[in-house]
Amino acid sequence: MAKSLEVQKAFGWAAKDASGILSPFHFSRRENGDEDVSVKILYCGVCHTDLHSCRNEWGNAHYPLVPGHEIVGTVTKIGNNVKKFKVGDRVGVGVMVGSCMLCEYCNQDLENYCPKIVFTYNSIDKDGTITYGGYADMIVVNQRFVVHFPDSLPADAGAPLLCAGITVYSPMKYYGMTEPGKHLGVVGLGGLGHVAVKIAKAFGLKVTVISSSPGKESEAINRLGAHAFLVSSDPGKMKGAIGTMDYIIDTVSAAHSLVPLLSLLKANGKLITLGLPNKPLDLPIFPLVLGRKLVGGSNVGGTIETQEMLEFCAKHNITADVEVIRMDEINTAMDRLAKSDVKYRFVIDVGNSLYQQ
Amino acid sequence: MAKSLEVQKAFGWAAKDASGILSPFHFSRRENGDEDVSVKILYCGVCHTDLHSCRNEWGNAHYPLVPGHEIVGTVTKIGNNVKKFKVGDRVGVGVMVGSCMLCEYCNQDLENYCPKIVFTYNSIDKDGTITYGGYADMIVVNQRFVVHFPDSLPADAGAPLLCAGITVYSPMKYYGMTEPGKHLGVVGLGGLGHVAVKIAKAFGLKVTVISSSPGKESEAINRLGAHAFLVSSDPGKMKGAIGTMDYIIDTVSAAHSLVPLLSLLKANGKLITLGLPNKPLDLPIFPLVLGRKLVGGSNVGGTIETQEMLEFCAKHNITADVEVIRMDEINTAMDRLAKSDVKYRFVIDVGNSLYQQ
Repeated sequence: MAKSLEVQKAFGWAAKDASGILSPFHFSRRENGDEDVSVKILYCGVCHTDLHSCRNEWGNAHYPLVPGHEIVGTVTKIGNNVKKFKVGDRVGVGVMVGSCMLCEYCNQDLENYCPKIVFTYNSIDKDGTITYGGYADMIVVNQRFVVHFPDSLPADAGAPLLCAGITVYSPMKYYGMTEPGKHLGVVGLGGLGHVAVKIAKAFGLKVTVISSSPGKESEAINRLGAHAFLVSSDPGKMKGAIGTMDYIIDTVSAAHSLVPLLSLLKANGKLITLGLPNKPLDLPIFPLVLGRKLVGGSNVGGTIETQEMLEFCAKHNITADVEVIRMDEINTAMDRLAKSDVKYRFVIDVGNSLYQQ
Repeated sequence: MAKSLEVQKAFGWAAKDASGILSPFHFSRRENGDEDVSVKILYCGVCHTDLHSCRNEWGNAHYPLVPGHEIVGTVTKIGNNVKKFKVGDRVGVGVMVGSCMLCEYCNQDLENYCPKIVFTYNSIDKDGTITYGGYADMIVVNQRFVVHFPDSLPADAGAPLLCAGITVYSPMKYYGMTEPGKHLGVVGLGGLGHVAVKIAKAFGLKVTVISSSPGKESEAINRLGAHAFLVSSDPGKMKGAIGTMDYIIDTVSAAHSLVPLLSLLKANGKLITLGLPNKPLDLPIFPLVLGRKLVGGSNVGGTIETQEMLEFCAKHNITADVEVIRMDEINTAMDRLAKSDVKYRFVIDVGNSLYQQ
């Protein structure tokens, strides 16, 4: 396949096989094209997708695999046509670094639904190379997929917004789930769920966290400020909440029943699922028809909406709750992430802990 | 239970048991209250729900059961507070004759989602009596649930719009499926489906009929003017249509897979199901999330939207394709309906064929 001849040296950590264990890795990035921005990476969030990909749980891993798509850094070099950024700007890069830029989705700034989307890592780039993500010292990205990272957002706790944040923000906007005073259920209190609670509160919604873990009640209410908490395995509590919610955001990837969630919705309620269960879920049709309910999905957001989300979070002082780790702590962190032992997102301090080895 | 003392004599045809066989039936309606309109019934459509109800297929039949909720008639008497109608007006009554008129749904003119909705037949009315439908000489209805029937709409072929018409019109409006040039798939070419094709064409949509019956191709294209036809059991044709549709209206009540239908949709596509399969359907989550697709339902529409739909149909010369029958032909018609042997709706000429016996 065609590759550009000029390259820039890069260094990061990669998984080399399906063990998923990450270790130092020297590689190269393309030299800046006219539309490209080179970014020195300062922080990178650790998304659950990174774990799935490193361990080839979706069967599509290309090794060596450098994960990471919640990237905050500083512009070090710009291409000739780049007007939107200058050297020294603080920027973010999320889950995608390319698309066709011509189709009906790209034309609506929905590059995230472009059939030719290029993901930030483990994806085939236009030049035929495999993309490498943000567990690395630098990255080269077409300016269309780079966002300004607001000054008031901390780079560490803000990094996860580039995936977790936009993943919950975009469906709230698209499906019209932002009307102040309406009641939102958030299913699952993890990386996505805890940001969903914060963004929903900023929209003025009443928020109920729905979780299988009774132990998360205090966390949900006292720390995150949710208005109520429902243990999904408690039939009495679930029954008491039937028909009380306007919207539900379901962040759970494990196979689970939609029936009790649909029953929590009022007529005209909306259930948005963001997780990716491997098997189809049972969909009862009566509540959909008789209550005009809908079940929809959503997958991150376009660049312009990501920028809008960052401004919104900056305005409302929304960040993720993070545990900052060093690069060489990543394997332990991945093991903990597999057990959901993190509140709520690991973020790698790439800038201060990635030493060339 | 409390019943008003004054009544009006009425006569119709009722099913007396789960055989579903209809026969003459003398009964009474309440005397007009201040908000009530008495209507002499001229025509009544035969909806598939009538068949289900007469044969107690949903297990909720109250016998004797007078079905019929696609009613066109003439006002014969009005209550003291009725300003919207006068004696002699041509009017329509659809699937509902009551609601609480106080809740958030009623306040939004969505009486059809009111938890206290009173259906036109086989439903418990506010006075504790069971409602009787339109296979009868007259009906008494609160003015809120009566619509003006446009002069230019024929009373026979227009009657089915009061259920079939609003059932397909309302979701097209609610889910934003009316953008000219967009591509709609209509699954199932029966009472609902054939009206959906006509209304969609009036909105300027490109329409493809999806059916399990290859024999309906000519009907769909030459008679109803659909732009294309897909046999759902032909894998080659179905494959060729993957990712081509913006919206799908699914009118099929039999259990069926949503997977091939979801694959026909483009990203951001909407699949609206109007049938009521008894069992849950398999819902694959990947296409929902990765393509931001949604599966939603809808159940008829409110009175104001029903009026709007009738004006729309009058303007665009949309009626149902009907076979007009006499009242005493109803049992044969029900048997034929059970075999889908009708193009596309039976309508009873109540005014000219309901003789007191």
